[in-house]
Parts: sequence; structure tokens; C-alpha cells
Amino acid sequence: MKIKVSRKEHFNAAHRLYNAALSDEENDRIFGKCSNPNYHGHNYELVVSLTGEPDPSTGYVYDMKKLSDLIRQDVLRKLDHKNLNLDTEFFKSLNPTAENIAVIIWKILREKIDAKFDLKITLYETERNFVEYPAA
Amino acid sequence: MKIKVSRKEHFNAAHRLYNAALSDEENDRIFGKCSNPNYHGHNYELVVSLTGEPDPSTGYVYDMKKLSDLIRQDVLRKLDHKNLNLDTEFFKSLNPTAENIAVIIWKILREKIDAKFDLKITLYETERNFVEYPAA
Amino acid sequence: MKIKVSRKEHFNAAHRLYNAALSDEENDRIFGKCSNPNYHGHNYELVVSLTGEPDPSTGYVYDMKKLSDLIRQDVLRKLDHKNLNLDTEFFKSLNPTAENIAVIIWKILREKIDAKFDLKITLYETERNFVEYPAA
Amino acid sequence: MKIKVSRKEHFNAAHRLYNAALSDEENDRIFGKCSNPNYHGHNYELVVSLTGEPDPSTGYVYDMKKLSDLIRQDVLRKLDHKNLNLDTEFFKSLNPTAENIAVIIWKILREKIDAKFDLKITLYETERNFVEYPAA
Amino acid sequence: MKIKVSRKEHFNAAHRLYNAALSDEENDRIFGKCSNPNYHGHNYELVVSLTGEPDPSTGYVYDMKKLSDLIRQDVLRKLDHKNLNLDTEFFKSLNPTAENIAVIIWKILREKIDAKFDLKITLYETERNFVEYPAA
Amino acid sequence: MKIKVSRKEHFNAAHRLYNAALSDEENDRIFGKCSNPNYHGHNYELVVSLTGEPDPSTGYVYDMKKLSDLIRQDVLRKLDHKNLNLDTEFFKSLNPTAENIAVIIWKILREKIDAKFDLKITLYETERNFVEYPAA
Repeated sequence: MKIKVSRKEHFNAAHRLYNAALSDEENDRIFGKCSNPNYHGHNYELVVSLTGEPDPSTGYVYDMKKLSDLIRQDVLRKLDHKNLNLDTEFFKSLNPTAENIAVIIWKILREKIDAKFDLKITLYETERNFVEYPAA
Repeated sequence: MKIKVSRKEHFNAAHRLYNAALSDEENDRIFGKCSNPNYHGHNYELVVSLTGEPDPSTGYVYDMKKLSDLIRQDVLRKLDHKNLNLDTEFFKSLNPTAENIAVIIWKILREKIDAKFDLKITLYETERNFVEYPAA
Repeated sequence: MKIKVSRKEHFNAAHRLYNAALSDEENDRIFGKCSNPNYHGHNYELVVSLTGEPDPSTGYVYDMKKLSDLIRQDVLRKLDHKNLNLDTEFFKSLNPTAENIAVIIWKILREKIDAKFDLKITLYETERNFVEYPAA
Repeated sequence: MKIKVSRKEHFNAAHRLYNAALSDEENDRIFGKCSNPNYHGHNYELVVSLTGEPDPSTGYVYDMKKLSDLIRQDVLRKLDHKNLNLDTEFFKSLNPTAENIAVIIWKILREKIDAKFDLKITLYETERNFVEYPAA
Repeated sequence: MKIKVSRKEHFNAAHRLYNAALSDEENDRIFGKCSNPNYHGHNYELVVSLTGEPDPSTGYVYDMKKLSDLIRQDVLRKLDHKNLNLDTEFFKSLNPTAENIAVIIWKILREKIDAKFDLKITLYETERNFVEYPAA
Repeated sequence: MKIKVSRKEHFNAAHRLYNAALSDEENDRIFGKCSNPNYHGHNYELVVSLTGEPDPSTGYVYDMKKLSDLIRQDVLRKLDHKNLNLDTEFFKSLNPTAENIAVIIWKILREKIDAKFDLKITLYETERNFVEYPAA
């Protein structure tokens, strides 16, 4: 009787898609306007999903208030209103694509959430572009 | 060639999170303002998903009109504009968390829908908190 | 050069539509299932709009962070996770229709916001039913 | 480290649900007002999801700009602002249910997208009715 | 103390933009793919807004259940799952643009709703294109 | 018989709220994390509304395709995927608050759109913060 519970949060950040190992021409060819050296930005919508069995005493798989607090403390405090390339440790040498941001958020939260829960990250970069990690 | 088809409905209800086996202090500590003795409420958004093979004659996995009628008759009539704790048989001794409400809806509909269809319930308590049963 | 700025917040509450001056039959005839004596509830979406001239120094008509704090302190603290009929001073003898809730919120905020700003409340009781006060 | 990436597009089309092998009475009984001989229509919302490993050089599973261009060229050009029954090759003898439209879109794109990526189609016929192919 | 109350409904229809007084070339030049002779279609979202004073006895400006029933009976029954050009009396010689559809709906409802209420129609042809009548 | 027609577009940009005439401490006190020197960003949703009389020949107040092209050419080309502070002429010495961005967009479009149409800009910086210019 496994149930998946999800909490939606949001953060706003600037970023630039860029791989320092490639030439400026290659960066421009691959990433186009997303590679603007002066950055652009997004309102990221973040869904964190945990799968597990409900606690018979509370009827909760996980307290959504606790999950929200955890996301705010460990994820949003590091990413919200930041320049992902310049202001965070994560993307100094890692390209801040939606895929890579989702994996980083998963790694941060995986350490904080009991291993008995499956953890999944869904990240909307825009209403039209979004990623899920892990895929299954 | 399995396809999943989904129908979205909604209902409005009052509830209170409360476990009679716990003290009032414990209920307050665990459920906080969600344990208000006078209840609060939500606009629940309900998605019912069936997975199966389309009928070659109709091109339907399941007639969405029939599914909508079934949800209205067997679920919404029992939950819409109700106090989940006081007005329903389901939550007399079961805490009406989103997790438990989703499981109850699943059980109601599982009896009404041919076993050849997989059945999944997604329940949004708010835009920011939602649950899926079964998880997979 | 007047600009209207708006902030969206939300609260969850139980309520019952009921006029004590009317008979139970009349209440039932007029309000139907919304008059359930055990209450039902909603996720209310609240938009507070202020119209004024932007401050030349900040470029703000009003600091949205301050407006959000004001709404949380003076409105949400009183209405969120409450039974509007039982837990609030406002609806002891006033029917908590969306119309009346919007007017109450307007009155609360009108005292807190400088008269140089026009104030408007938009309140979504559901995605399908909403009210605006004042209308113009 | 598989990631699922999704792109949302939309198209507007007319259609009629109808099986020429059935009598008009049977079509009417099964499809009701969806079988109106003069057609009705929808704003279809289409989500195309690819699952794969991110390219270490780009951080992309798939370039969303390329995926958007591919959908526009191979799907939307054929379906957008069309009468699905009359103007497309796909639904001359296939009933344009949401299920069948999703399968057709999957078949079109499956030929264009490298087999190393899993492909999934989600199609919203309305906000309340949607289908996913394949289901898993 | 005027309040505006609004009810949102939806209908699905096929249409074609076409002015019989113009040549086919002109229709094609002006309306492009919207002039496809075989029609295309939309999920129209309709918001009907009434402005008036709340009834002191009920706290309602207008009963939203009654307004919903009125819209279903007098508007949706005529437009939902129809071909606007072929199946309705309104657009035999009037081009079914969003503008004209909104005006027609306004005229239908204006006759049914007491003149003491201001009436306004907002019609979303898509999420991206919408019209309001009257404008003010 | 004036009708308001609206077109919704979107752009993604980085910005920083900052007034060079103020000290860094004052900027930090007034704008908080929105003043991050390395910028943050948003998915801006832009609604452009024109009010006028429908052309009797077309049934259009304004061709939405033309309006969309105009917005893309004259607004989005200048703002989309840009750093508003660094990459645009408009915000070299003007603080890129939502209020100021809306006024700039209004000024750009006012020159391009016939004076017989009233013009209004609605700009969503986030789902929760938005501005309208002019206010009425």
C-alpha cells in the first residue's frame, strides 16, 4: 500500500547555459540565446515527491509541513533569487540545465530524507519545459 | 498497447486531522492548525486514471462520460459539500488525510470498475499538496 | 501614470451558508448543500490589488513583500484553517458568502493601507466562482 | 541516471467521433454529442516526454528547442487548425478519440527520435480529459 | 457597495472564420488557417460576470447555482459540441470570431438577467487569446 | 459596442532591483534578495489588451496573429533571454521593477498601435505578483 505524496514549491533564479570546455561559437550554436553571457532567468516550479507507506498513527506518508520546511531550508535558501552559475557551489563547473538542477536537488534532499522513502524531483523551467529525476 | 485515460473532477469538503487515540496535545503537535476542532476545508481536485487497451470498435479505453457519471454517483455524492469526519461513514475512525481519502476513493471505485483496468487515484488537497495511490 | 499592483495569497477554511433569521427549510431551499450544518470548505485564492503612482526612487507602487506580510498578519492569521462561522468574529451574524468575505477582507485592509491607494479584493471560492469588491 | 524531459505544445482541431462500421443509432448511442455530423473541436495540449541519459557535454537529455521544432514540423503542421476526420490521412478510417490521436502522434515521433530514448505522449483533449501512451 | 460576481463555464465547438461577402483569396489572406473550409475547433472558457448589490438576506449578489443553470440552459445547450457556422442560428451570416461569439452570448443572457445587474462576458478562445464585452 | 481583445505572450529574463542613487545598504534594505548583484530571473507572462470596435467585415477588433507578431518583433526580441539591466537600453538608469517594465512595454507598443485602440499591459512577474498599466 505505497502512496506517493508531493509538495510543490518555487524559486526564481538567473542562469546561463555554458560549457567552459567548448568554444564560444560552440556554446552559441548549442545553447543559442540561453547562453547569453549576461544571463537570463526563470520562475522554477519544483515538485518533490516521496513514496512510502502511511504511518498508521498519523495517516501521513510524510508531514507536508516538514517537507516544505526541509525544501525551504536546504534547497530554496541556496537557489532562490540566486545566479545559479555565480552564486552557488553546485554550478561552478556544471552546466545549470533543468536536468542538472533536478539532479542536484535530488542529491541534496536524498541525504536528508530517510532511505525508506523513494524520492523524485520534477522541475518546471517554464510551463512548457520540465524534467523528472529519476525518470521512472 | 496499453493506454492510460484520466478524468478530472472536484469536490469541496470540510475536515479535521485528528487521531482519537492520541492526546489533544499530541494531535496539536502533529497536525497543528489542521487539527482545529471546528474544522477547515478544501477544494479537492480528483483525477481518476484507468489503464487498459482501447476497444477496437470505439477507440475508447473507457467512456469518459461513463467514468464521470460513476465518479459523481459513487464518490462525489458521498464527499462533496460534506464534513468528512462527521458526515461520511469512511472517516468515523480513520483520519481524513489526503493519503487516506485517496485510498478510500480507490476502494470505492475498484469495486465498480472491471478488474481488467488498472486504477489510480491522484488527489490534490491544494495546488501545492497532492497524493497518488497506488504510487507506481 | 497610475498602475495597479496585485498580490495573490491563499487560505483554507470551512464554512456554512446560513441565515439565522430564516427557517431551516428556507436556508435549505436557498443555499442547498452549501448549508450543510456540519460545514464544508474551500481553498480560497485571494488577490489584493492596489492602485497608485510608482515611487520614483524605488519604482514600486507598493512593496509586494510588505503587502504579503500585511495580508498574512491581518487577514490569513484570522481566516486560514478556520471555521469562518465559528472561529471568527466577522461571521457570527454575517453569512460567509464569497461576497461578504471579500467585503470583510477589504475593510480589514482598508484600515492598514494608506488612503492614497485604491484597494480592490478579488476572491476565488473555487476556480469557477469568484467575486470582486469593489466592482469597478 | 535516466532523466525524463518533456515539452508542451498545443494545437486546435475539429473532429467527430464516428465508426463507419456502426449504424448512426449506434454511433449516437456510444458517442452522443461527440458524434455531431458537423463536428466540434478542442484546444489540444500535447506533452512529449523523452527519457534518456543527459549528454555530459551539454547537460541536455535532448535539446528542447529541437524537440519543439520536430513537434511543430511533424505533428502540428499536420494536425493544427485541421479537421482531423477530413483533412488528415490518419483518421480516414480510424476514430479520432484522444487515445487514437495519442497513438498516432507517438508513431509519427517514434520514427524521428533515436531509439535510445523512451518516448511518451500525454494528450489533453480538455482540462478534464487526458490520455497517456504508453501507459507505463 | 457594488460587487462583481463571476461564474466560469466551458464549451467545445468547431468553427471557421469566413466572410461570404469576400473572395476565397481575401478570406484566406485575412483569416489564414482559421479559414480552413473543413473547420477547426476550440475549448472555449466562458466567464459570465454580474455586478450588483448583495441581497441583505442571502449575502448573494446572484445565486451562482442559478447562474450556472442559466448558462447551461440558454448558452451551452446551443453552442456546446456544435459547429458554430452550421449548427447555430447565430452564425449563419455572422463570422464566429471570439468577439462576435462574446457579443452573441451577452445578448442571449442580457434578456434573461434582471437589468439591475451589469453583465459582462469574458471568452477565452485559447489560453492565449481572449475577449471581453463590454470592454469597460 | 467596444470590445477588449487580449493576447498572452511570455519571455524569460534576468534582472536586479537597484537604484544607483541609493547606497548599497539602502538598496539591500529596500529590495532585499531582489537586489542580488549577480541577478536573479523570472518567466514573465505578458498580456497585451486592445479595446476598440470590431471591424464589420472581419469581426475582429484586431488580428491576434498581427498582435502576436508585433509583440514578438518589438517587445520580445528586446527582452526575451536578456539581462534587463545590462542588455537593454531601457533599464540602464531605470529600475526594472514589474511596474517599470510594464510602462516600457506600453510605450513601445503605443507607438505601433493605432491611437483609436486603448492599450493596456498586464505583466505577471510571478504567478503571485502582477501589475497592470494603465490601472483603469
